[in-house]
Amino acid sequence: MVGRPGPGRAVTRPLASREALRRFLCPASIAVVGASERRGAFGARVLENLAGFAGAVWPVNPRYRELAGRACYPSLEALPGVPDCVALATPREGAAAVLRGAAALGAGGAVVFAAGFAETGMAERVAEQAALVEAAGAMPLLGPNCLGFTDFGSRAGVTFSAGPRALSPEGPAIGIVSQSGALGYALAQAVERGVAVSHVLSAGNAAGLDAADLIAFLAEEPGCRAIACVIEGLAEPRRLLAAAALAARAGKPLLLHKMATGAQGAAAALSHTGAVAGGHAVWRAALREAGVVLVEDFAALAEMAAFFAKAPAAPRAGGVAVVSTSGGAGILAADAAERHGVPLPQPGAEAGAVLAARIPEYGAAGNPCDLTAQVLNDAEALVACTTALATDPAFGALLYPNTHAYAFSAERIPVMAGIAARHGGFLCVPWLAEWRENPVAREAQAVPGAALFSSMERCFAALAAWRARAEHAARPAEPVAGLDANAPDAGALARVAAVIGAAPGAVLTESRAKALLAAIGIPVVPERLVGDGEAAVRAAAALGYPVVLKAESPDLPHKTEAGAVRLNLGDAEALRAACDEMLGRLARRDPPPRLEGLLVQPMLPRGLEVIIGGHRDPLFGPVVAVGLGGVLVELLGDMEVALAPVGPMQALRMLRRLRGAALFAGFRGEPEVDLEALAGIVSRVSALLAAEPRIAELDINPVICGGGGVVAVDGLVTLGMDCDGGRR
Amino acid sequence: MVGRPGPGRAVTRPLASREALRRFLCPASIAVVGASERRGAFGARVLENLAGFAGAVWPVNPRYRELAGRACYPSLEALPGVPDCVALATPREGAAAVLRGAAALGAGGAVVFAAGFAETGMAERVAEQAALVEAAGAMPLLGPNCLGFTDFGSRAGVTFSAGPRALSPEGPAIGIVSQSGALGYALAQAVERGVAVSHVLSAGNAAGLDAADLIAFLAEEPGCRAIACVIEGLAEPRRLLAAAALAARAGKPLLLHKMATGAQGAAAALSHTGAVAGGHAVWRAALREAGVVLVEDFAALAEMAAFFAKAPAAPRAGGVAVVSTSGGAGILAADAAERHGVPLPQPGAEAGAVLAARIPEYGAAGNPCDLTAQVLNDAEALVACTTALATDPAFGALLYPNTHAYAFSAERIPVMAGIAARHGGFLCVPWLAEWRENPVAREAQAVPGAALFSSMERCFAALAAWRARAEHAARPAEPVAGLDANAPDAGALARVAAVIGAAPGAVLTESRAKALLAAIGIPVVPERLVGDGEAAVRAAAALGYPVVLKAESPDLPHKTEAGAVRLNLGDAEALRAACDEMLGRLARRDPPPRLEGLLVQPMLPRGLEVIIGGHRDPLFGPVVAVGLGGVLVELLGDMEVALAPVGPMQALRMLRRLRGAALFAGFRGEPEVDLEALAGIVSRVSALLAAEPRIAELDINPVICGGGGVVAVDGLVTLGMDCDGGRR
Repeated sequence: MVGRPGPGRAVTRPLASREALRRFLCPASIAVVGASERRGAFGARVLENLAGFAGAVWPVNPRYRELAGRACYPSLEALPGVPDCVALATPREGAAAVLRGAAALGAGGAVVFAAGFAETGMAERVAEQAALVEAAGAMPLLGPNCLGFTDFGSRAGVTFSAGPRALSPEGPAIGIVSQSGALGYALAQAVERGVAVSHVLSAGNAAGLDAADLIAFLAEEPGCRAIACVIEGLAEPRRLLAAAALAARAGKPLLLHKMATGAQGAAAALSHTGAVAGGHAVWRAALREAGVVLVEDFAALAEMAAFFAKAPAAPRAGGVAVVSTSGGAGILAADAAERHGVPLPQPGAEAGAVLAARIPEYGAAGNPCDLTAQVLNDAEALVACTTALATDPAFGALLYPNTHAYAFSAERIPVMAGIAARHGGFLCVPWLAEWRENPVAREAQAVPGAALFSSMERCFAALAAWRARAEHAARPAEPVAGLDANAPDAGALARVAAVIGAAPGAVLTESRAKALLAAIGIPVVPERLVGDGEAAVRAAAALGYPVVLKAESPDLPHKTEAGAVRLNLGDAEALRAACDEMLGRLARRDPPPRLEGLLVQPMLPRGLEVIIGGHRDPLFGPVVAVGLGGVLVELLGDMEVALAPVGPMQALRMLRRLRGAALFAGFRGEPEVDLEALAGIVSRVSALLAAEPRIAELDINPVICGGGGVVAVDGLVTLGMDCDGGRR
Repeated sequence: MVGRPGPGRAVTRPLASREALRRFLCPASIAVVGASERRGAFGARVLENLAGFAGAVWPVNPRYRELAGRACYPSLEALPGVPDCVALATPREGAAAVLRGAAALGAGGAVVFAAGFAETGMAERVAEQAALVEAAGAMPLLGPNCLGFTDFGSRAGVTFSAGPRALSPEGPAIGIVSQSGALGYALAQAVERGVAVSHVLSAGNAAGLDAADLIAFLAEEPGCRAIACVIEGLAEPRRLLAAAALAARAGKPLLLHKMATGAQGAAAALSHTGAVAGGHAVWRAALREAGVVLVEDFAALAEMAAFFAKAPAAPRAGGVAVVSTSGGAGILAADAAERHGVPLPQPGAEAGAVLAARIPEYGAAGNPCDLTAQVLNDAEALVACTTALATDPAFGALLYPNTHAYAFSAERIPVMAGIAARHGGFLCVPWLAEWRENPVAREAQAVPGAALFSSMERCFAALAAWRARAEHAARPAEPVAGLDANAPDAGALARVAAVIGAAPGAVLTESRAKALLAAIGIPVVPERLVGDGEAAVRAAAALGYPVVLKAESPDLPHKTEAGAVRLNLGDAEALRAACDEMLGRLARRDPPPRLEGLLVQPMLPRGLEVIIGGHRDPLFGPVVAVGLGGVLVELLGDMEVALAPVGPMQALRMLRRLRGAALFAGFRGEPEVDLEALAGIVSRVSALLAAEPRIAELDINPVICGGGGVVAVDGLVTLGMDCDGGRR
């Protein structure tokens, strides 16, 4: 097992070992079972894609003695050596037998191209896929239903894709990992426009190796400088996080486009908080926290990865200087910078003086600076201004918006990139000309120290992601949040177990839920559980008026809607009347709810209402969520989620990312919220979910944050079977 | 004046006449003043760009007898005829004199390339620009500080741009209008990748013709099928709306990227509502209402325009069918469809049967359908499935995600486009291969009935915009909202004038503001203005308890923050105490506010709070805004704005577009809001702003929408000088 396993849903398979994958994916010998000369056949296409491979290629097919100028063998057993890689270009039906043979020989790994296995949803085909896995045994297996892989370094095109013929430009390269082979090879066609690519690895049905294994492999491949990954989903996404951790440790940016962002997530959601937190939001939160650069638009993936492959690990300063020859392009840059939160500070005095001296009065001698079309006749001005900005300590990157796809304009790129690199900077070139790809762009893409972008928007998205990634890498690791460390005293888990043990059913009513919260040190509103109006009045006298009255029943998870909550009861008379009214109303329900009593609580002063929830994501395991009560969460879904457990620092980041976070500072005269206390509660709840697998779902709604501190006022806990095991 | 002028800020200049522009921009003869043979000089570059022009080209320069193989003339006066177009490639200093001469000759129009005029911000240069305008007189003037224009049809490249050499592919073409010449010619480089372009027209400083004039020209140019426009801003944006109306009438899609979306707007904002409504939001609302397709990402402009130039005016059905050879691409399509609200319905029984018969079990015989890589060996299946979907009445467009930039894959495009076109549909091709431009893509772009997109995202953005534009075009025109038509009885304006006339200062206090609202038929909460606590108690007895008490003062625009509001006073005792407390508190303020009395109002039952506001935008004139009270507007800026006046139907659309619109249906058991009544109030407020130029700003905060209807509870009106005149 590589990488620290997260608590929660267990990781059942370790990541594949690097040694095993190296032999398989950087092979010295490749056998092609089902090799063919029939045009268009998989067995013929693979041979074509291996034409430039320097190692041994062994076609296997009893019908031929020779194929494509190579000796052809009747069986794997007849080969002159044990192949590092076996490609199965044979039909589905015989695949398991071939795999068994390859494994018996000690082959390094196998690729199965054939489709029609588990992806059909048919039970017998699912079984056939399981048989493949069984047949392969310990031998690495790629596929089935995959397009194979290409190692551009050795020109090993172990694929039937008609994509790029295993030739890549030189330079810092991106490695591509994709479940969908078509999309993986679509990305790899970036080689045609000058982007260096080291590998395409397609996982297909991922019966054996999945995207996580392949990322882990690339993390330590020296030829790969950044990883571009596109996935639909994974059976064990925490393996992907472990692979991401490996990539981070290797200093290798991992960029990922997660597909299937839609309805999928909703089906998995179980409760209100669950629904908001589910699906894509959990993926996004988990990947971001793992330092992955999330690319929401698939079309931006390759160019963002190419940027990260070339750029320094971190910008040397936060600011970006725009060096333009068009005022319009400068405005586009300013607009995009604002949208992406990338600062465009003004140059310092020294650089400013150079700009003022070199730029005509109808240009702009600031940032963005506009040298105007006059630069056509004054190339020296461009060099002087670029140098001035490249040496200004405010700027970590220069940005040259190229509006012409013609040579005279692109010639500036190596010059400017050289100046930027000399001073520790980097040159970004948004290619604004509509002729985005042409021989000139291809050359520009090859310039060290410069990256091309097909739009201003993507360029600034990349600049923002660059800074965010550097901040993530620089952030000190937070210790794993445990319950005992966070709770005010020891024994919290035992007290939790006691509350759960005493519960009569799967739903903990409000008072039990709050007892559980209190057990882990979360401040809860004081309350008394009473049997009738008179007892309520006695309780209220002790607690102090005004009070809140609630019915305590496992059958009323949504008390307000059921009329089982009365707020702001000012005296005994009002309380007594409310008790009578509530008991009468509940008794008239059909069927009447089981009633465990009436809860009397002091009415807290108004404050900001926060919802904290947690549930077990079917993929990721325990997840904690936090949002602001009212329309923000219920209407706009303004929740932040994270895999549990989260430490207080991460919880603080979650709170600050909420769209409504400005409310924490005090809204309309409300007091400022004690954010650290609130973050502490989020952390403790998350630790509880991670530590106590019997809790299926938990909602604290609301936590009232006011002058009196941060207090849980209502809670609901649902117990359930934990199928996947927590950190037991 | 072309097009109906909006009320509010007056339009001072009519749009340029079509006849005048046709002569100038479709010239038969072009004079180039300052023509040169010096490589790189503007005068040399223009001649180069005119090399393919079939009409007369007359270089003008006393230093040459011949230039580029053409006779050269010493002056405009010496030309063999009166030029339709004069290009000034001369320095700034002599430009006015040349213009005067050209105008005196009766030339058709002039382009001034020179920079250094008003854009410098220097007073003397602003004056020089004014002198240009004066010198040109009635002769159309393009520039100064512009890159000129290109008519690709006649190969008239009246520009010094090094951009495309006035050659465009055949086919339905886009016309380009840009303030920034660099960006305009950046867009025009789309010709290099197979997009047909009819014109590039760059406005530069727009001292004479601006983007509105140029759009109006293209609206009636037969060679242009869709207009792509990029602007920074306009002095008189309502002229642009008039031009947009011309384009709409001509059935010509107008796509626009508005630059300078940022801080600019904030500076113009005057009040809370104004701030939310200002800047880009007003632009966006005004343009959308005019039927303009807003393109937020500049990089998407040309390809979206190319789509609109080729696609039918409206989709024949709302659904889109995805025909893919990659499951991954299908998922990308489903994700993007969901994000953009484009339906992907399942095929009907007939088409479904064809898919089921033709698609292997490991593909997907639905929508998106995945024919899998097997289509490589079964081209007939592709034709059969495409035909089945193209004839299914659910689908208005087919979508073929192309994952390969190689010929075998692109060969399918003309076949599929032909099938789609035969049945009234259209083929969209998201070009997912990273090699987005290549000879194959260029050919595919030329296929009639198909449009290429460089990403799935942009393809669905275009499909959504296509439908929205068709809906806009089909929408019956709403009569201009006038006050008398909307107010319940006549004489509303006279009553408004009476309230304004009686106002002692620039700020109307709450009771005066509500008198004004009542005068135009808006329901307001009943109230009494009283002098002391005893009078308040008498008023409350008449109104009924509980009541609200407020201080009425022109010095307290924000009463709640000043402690000048007390809610929910239940009886005479509470009211009396509140009066004493409030009067005492206000008396202790330094300086004490001028007090006109105390307002007593019945306390309304809770309801949804809505804010309606209006102000005069410095560019657009009267603007109305509406939002939901509380965090939605104050924290998230969830306001919808529109140019005033708006009719009730448009007001209803504004309300439904609010992010919080779901609240209108009744949230947490609240009653449903009477949306028609609310829309009526928005319309009346907008009509008031349009009709009464003395109102600078108006806020109704809140309008309470509850069981008792829709009632204005508080209001504030600021009077001001109206500089630009309303519809007086």
